[in-house]
Amino acid sequence: MTTTAFLGLGAMGFPMAAHLARQARAAGGRALVWNRTQSRAEAHAREHGSERVDLPGVAGADVIFSCLPTSAEVDEMLARLAGDLRPGTVWVDCTSGHPQAARRQAAALAERGVAFLDAPVSGGTSGAAAGTLTVMVGGDPQVLARVQPDLAFAGKVVHVGEAGAGFAVKAVNNALLAANLWAAGEGLAALARAGVDLGAALDVINASSGRSNASENLIGSRVLTRAFPVTFQLGLLAKDTGIAADVVREAGASAPVLMQVEALMRAAAHTVGAGEDHTAALRLIEQFNDKEIK
Amino acid sequence: MTTTAFLGLGAMGFPMAAHLARQARAAGGRALVWNRTQSRAEAHAREHGSERVDLPGVAGADVIFSCLPTSAEVDEMLARLAGDLRPGTVWVDCTSGHPQAARRQAAALAERGVAFLDAPVSGGTSGAAAGTLTVMVGGDPQVLARVQPDLAFAGKVVHVGEAGAGFAVKAVNNALLAANLWAAGEGLAALARAGVDLGAALDVINASSGRSNASENLIGSRVLTRAFPVTFQLGLLAKDTGIAADVVREAGASAPVLMQVEALMRAAAHTVGAGEDHTAALRLIEQFNDKEIK
Amino acid sequence: MTTTAFLGLGAMGFPMAAHLARQARAAGGRALVWNRTQSRAEAHAREHGSERVDLPGVAGADVIFSCLPTSAEVDEMLARLAGDLRPGTVWVDCTSGHPQAARRQAAALAERGVAFLDAPVSGGTSGAAAGTLTVMVGGDPQVLARVQPDLAFAGKVVHVGEAGAGFAVKAVNNALLAANLWAAGEGLAALARAGVDLGAALDVINASSGRSNASENLIGSRVLTRAFPVTFQLGLLAKDTGIAADVVREAGASAPVLMQVEALMRAAAHTVGAGEDHTAALRLIEQFNDKEIK
Amino acid sequence: MTTTAFLGLGAMGFPMAAHLARQARAAGGRALVWNRTQSRAEAHAREHGSERVDLPGVAGADVIFSCLPTSAEVDEMLARLAGDLRPGTVWVDCTSGHPQAARRQAAALAERGVAFLDAPVSGGTSGAAAGTLTVMVGGDPQVLARVQPDLAFAGKVVHVGEAGAGFAVKAVNNALLAANLWAAGEGLAALARAGVDLGAALDVINASSGRSNASENLIGSRVLTRAFPVTFQLGLLAKDTGIAADVVREAGASAPVLMQVEALMRAAAHTVGAGEDHTAALRLIEQFNDKEIK
Repeated sequence: MTTTAFLGLGAMGFPMAAHLARQARAAGGRALVWNRTQSRAEAHAREHGSERVDLPGVAGADVIFSCLPTSAEVDEMLARLAGDLRPGTVWVDCTSGHPQAARRQAAALAERGVAFLDAPVSGGTSGAAAGTLTVMVGGDPQVLARVQPDLAFAGKVVHVGEAGAGFAVKAVNNALLAANLWAAGEGLAALARAGVDLGAALDVINASSGRSNASENLIGSRVLTRAFPVTFQLGLLAKDTGIAADVVREAGASAPVLMQVEALMRAAAHTVGAGEDHTAALRLIEQFNDKEIK
Repeated sequence: MTTTAFLGLGAMGFPMAAHLARQARAAGGRALVWNRTQSRAEAHAREHGSERVDLPGVAGADVIFSCLPTSAEVDEMLARLAGDLRPGTVWVDCTSGHPQAARRQAAALAERGVAFLDAPVSGGTSGAAAGTLTVMVGGDPQVLARVQPDLAFAGKVVHVGEAGAGFAVKAVNNALLAANLWAAGEGLAALARAGVDLGAALDVINASSGRSNASENLIGSRVLTRAFPVTFQLGLLAKDTGIAADVVREAGASAPVLMQVEALMRAAAHTVGAGEDHTAALRLIEQFNDKEIK
Repeated sequence: MTTTAFLGLGAMGFPMAAHLARQARAAGGRALVWNRTQSRAEAHAREHGSERVDLPGVAGADVIFSCLPTSAEVDEMLARLAGDLRPGTVWVDCTSGHPQAARRQAAALAERGVAFLDAPVSGGTSGAAAGTLTVMVGGDPQVLARVQPDLAFAGKVVHVGEAGAGFAVKAVNNALLAANLWAAGEGLAALARAGVDLGAALDVINASSGRSNASENLIGSRVLTRAFPVTFQLGLLAKDTGIAADVVREAGASAPVLMQVEALMRAAAHTVGAGEDHTAALRLIEQFNDKEIK
Repeated sequence: MTTTAFLGLGAMGFPMAAHLARQARAAGGRALVWNRTQSRAEAHAREHGSERVDLPGVAGADVIFSCLPTSAEVDEMLARLAGDLRPGTVWVDCTSGHPQAARRQAAALAERGVAFLDAPVSGGTSGAAAGTLTVMVGGDPQVLARVQPDLAFAGKVVHVGEAGAGFAVKAVNNALLAANLWAAGEGLAALARAGVDLGAALDVINASSGRSNASENLIGSRVLTRAFPVTFQLGLLAKDTGIAADVVREAGASAPVLMQVEALMRAAAHTVGAGEDHTAALRLIEQFNDKEIK
C-alpha cells in the first residue's frame, strides 16, 4: 500500500494526480497532493478523492511526484523539503527539466538516501486525462522498476539512460516538434503566397511523406482555423528548445537546424507572446511572409 | 474504352503502369507503355499485359502519363512527340517536376488542343505497388474530373490549384520530408553523443509530439540499422528541395529553415553521393558530430 | 571623340552620368542622358552640361550605359530600342542585374552586332559622387579594354569573367554585406540584452577581428543613432541577396548561411518596409530580441 | 614600482609578457613569469629579462595577468594559488574566457580582497608582438584605472561593462569573425562553381561593401593560397562561438545566424580538425560544394 504525493497541479499535473488518486482508491493506498495555490489542491481532493497536505506533509510519501514549470521550481521545492525527506523515498520529477539540474538534484538527494528519477511526459493534456502519457525516464533502472506500478498516468514507460537522460530526450522531442511545426508553417506560407489552396495542400501532405504530428494534429485544427487554443504555451516550448540547445552544446554536438529553430522560437515568443499557444509561433512566419496561413 | 500510354517505367512508373494495364484488361481498354530502354517496356508488356509501342505510337492514346526524373526529360518527350499529338488528348505528368515548367508546358500543349495536368504522386514504391498513391493535381479541374477514373494507381486524388500547383505542393511536401528527417537526425546525433540509447529515444519520440513520417518510417529501419536501402535517391530529394526553394523565391516568400535544409541536402548529395538513399543524408550529420546514429 | 548615353538618372546614375559629362567636356565628346521622368534629365543637362535626348536618340551613342532598378527594366529598354541600335555599339549595364538576364541580353544584342558588358558598381552614392566606384565586369575583355577609358565614374575596374559574372560577383558582394550586417546586429542585440554598453562594444569590435564594412561604416552612424537614412533601399538589398541565391542554386552550390540571410532579408523587407534603408533590417532583429540596438 | 606576474606564455602570452618586462626595465619594476612547461618561462627570462618564478611566487605580484586556453585553466590556477593571494592584488585575466566564470571568479576573489578584471585581447600574434592589442575590460572601472598603466601590451583599452562583459564582447567579436569568414567562404565557393575568377572576385569584394576583416586579411593570404598557417586554432574559435551562443541564451536573446555559424564551426572542428587554423573551416564549405576555394 503505497503513499504517493504529487507537487504541482497544473494543466498536466491535475489530471495526472487524478490517476494516482484513482489507483490509490483501487489498491488501498493514499494519494497526497500539494499545490502552491491551495484552492486548486482542495478542488483536486474534492473531485478526485486525493488528500490535500501542507508541504512538509509531502515528505511522508513513499513516492513523490513533481510536475512544475521548470527545474528552478523543483530546486525550490527540494530546498524547502530538504530537512523532512526520509531515506528510501523516491522522487519522480515529471517536469520538462534540465539534464544538468537532474544530475545535480540526483546527487544532492542521494546524500539523504533519496532516489531521483527524471521522468518527463509526452502526450499533452488529452494524454494526461486519458492516462496514456509516454514517460521517458533517466536514472537507476532498478529504482524505476520499483516505482513503475505507481506511474498510473502512463501508457508507455521507457528507460532511456542515466540521470538527466529523460530530460534530454524530452527536450530533443520538443525541439523536433518545434522544427516540424515551423517547417510546415514555412511551406504552407509559401504555398499560400503562390495561390495554392492550403486545406487541399495540408490534406495531401498528411497523406504523404512530409507529414508529422505537427502537420496532422496541430496545423489543421489550430492554425488554419485561426483558433490557436492555449494548451501548451509558446514560452514553454521555447524553453524546451533552449534546453535541447544546451544538450547539444554540452555534448559537443553540431545541430544547425535545431539551433536555428531555437532562435526562431525565442523570437516568436518575444514577438507573438510567451503566453500564447505554441502553434501561434507561426504568426511570426505569417509576418515574415505578409500572408496568413489559412 | 480508354487507351492510356505511360512514358517512363522507372522504380515508380513500372508498378504505376501495371495498374493501368490491370484496369485496361478489366474495362476493355488498352494500356500502351514506352521506355527509353526498350527491354524494360518489353518486360512490362510480358509481366502485366501492357502493349509496348514506339514513341510516335504514344500519341494514339487518349490519356498520356509521364513519370520521368525531372521536367527536362518531359520537355524532351514533348519536343519529340509534338507533331504527333492529337487535339483532345490529356497529358498527365506524374514527374516531380517544376511549377514553371508545368505552366510553360501547359501553355504550349494548349495551342495544340492538348490539356496538361501536373499530377505528381507520393507514397513511394510500396504505394505504387499497392495502387494507393496520393496524387496532387494542378490544372483545370474539369479535365481532372474527366481523367480521374483512369488514375488506377491512386488511393487519393486532390486538386490543389492551377497549372504548376501540383508540382509546388509536391516540392514543399518533399522539403518537409527533408526537414523532418534532418532535424530528427540532428537530435539523435546529439543524444548519441550524450550517451542516450537511441533505440529507446526513437521509441519515445515516435510515441510523442516530435514524431514524423521520417522518424516513424525511415530512421528506425534505414538509419539505426545502417542499411540505407536505396528506394529514393538523395540527389532527387535535393532536387525537390531545390524546386521548393524556387517556389519560395518566386512567391516572394521567406522560409529560412527550408532554405537551410535545401543547402544541407545539396551538401549531403555532394558529400555522401547523389545516388545513395535519401536517408543517407544523415551521414553528413554523423560527420558533423563525429558520431554514428545507431 | 566618343559619344556616350546614360539611361537611368537615379540616386546612383545621376552622379555617374555627371562624370561622363565632365569627361566629354574635357575631351570634346558628347554625353547624352535619358530618364523616364524627363524633368530629371533636363536638370542633369542644366547642372552638368549633358544633352537630354529622346529614347531613340540614345541609339546614336557609341557607348550606352544603363543603371536601372532591375534587369526587367533593362529588358524593357532593349525592347524599345531594338530597332534603332547600330552595329559596333557597346552597351554597358551598370544595373545590379541578374546573371541569367546578362547572358540572354548579351546573346540577343550580339545578333545585332552590339556588344554587352554587365558592369555593376559598388561604392554607394558617395562613391558615385566622388567618381571612385568599383566596377566589376563580365563579358569580352577586349570590349572592356575598348570602353574602359569611358568609365569616368570608376576608381577601380576589374574583369571577373564571362557574361553574367559581373552581376554574379555583385550579388555575392551584396549578400556578404547583408550577412555581415545581420550578424553584427544579432551580436549587438544580445550584448544589449546582457547589459553591455553598445558604443564601447562596437568600438572594440571595429578595432578587432570581427569588424566588417557593415560594422565600421553603417552600424555606428545609422543604427545606434536610430537615423536609418535611406541611401540604399532594403527591398533592393533583398533583391540582390535573392540573385545571389539564384547564383548559388544555378551553380549547384551549397550556402546555408547565405540562404538563411536571404530569407531573413526578405522577412525584414516584408516587416520593416522595402522602402526603408537596408540597415533598418536590424529592426527585425530588435523585434526578435525585444530590445533596441542603441 | 609595480611588480607584475604573467601566467601562460603561449603564442599570445609570450610576446605580451615581453612588453611587461620591457616596461619593468624602463620603470624600475619587476616582471615575473610562470608557465606550466618551465623551459618556456626560462626562455622568456633569458630573451626578455623577466624573472621566472614558481607558482606560489606569483602571489607576490601587485598585478597578476593570466592568458590561458579556457576559463577552466584559470579556475585551476586560482585553486592552486588561493591560499597565497594577498588583499589589494589585481588579477587581470586575458584569457578568452566565459562570462559566467568571470562572475564566479570575481566573487570568489573579492572575498579575499583581490580584484578581478576580465580583459581579453584582440589583435592576434602580430598585435601581441607589436604591443598594439585591443583590450576589452569587464569589472570595476576604478580598478581598471589603477592598472591601466600596466597594460603594456595594449594599443587600445575599452571598458565595456561589469564583470563578464569583457568576455561577452570578445565572444561576440569572435562569433562575428566566424560568421564573416564563413559567409565569404560560401560566396566564393559558389562563384568558383560558376566559373568566376576568385582572385578578381575577392579583389572587387575587398573594394566594395561586402568586405570584412576576414575577406581582407585572411581569405586571400590563407585560403586562396592553400597555406592555412596555424596562428589561431579552429577548435578555439569554435569554443569562442560556443561562448557567444551561451551569452545569447543567458540573455534570452535570439540570434539565428550566429547559432547556425556556431553549429557549422563545431562541425568544421570535428571534420577538419580542431588543431587546424581557423580559416581551414572553409574546407568544410569546399566539401559541401565539391569545389576548392582557390
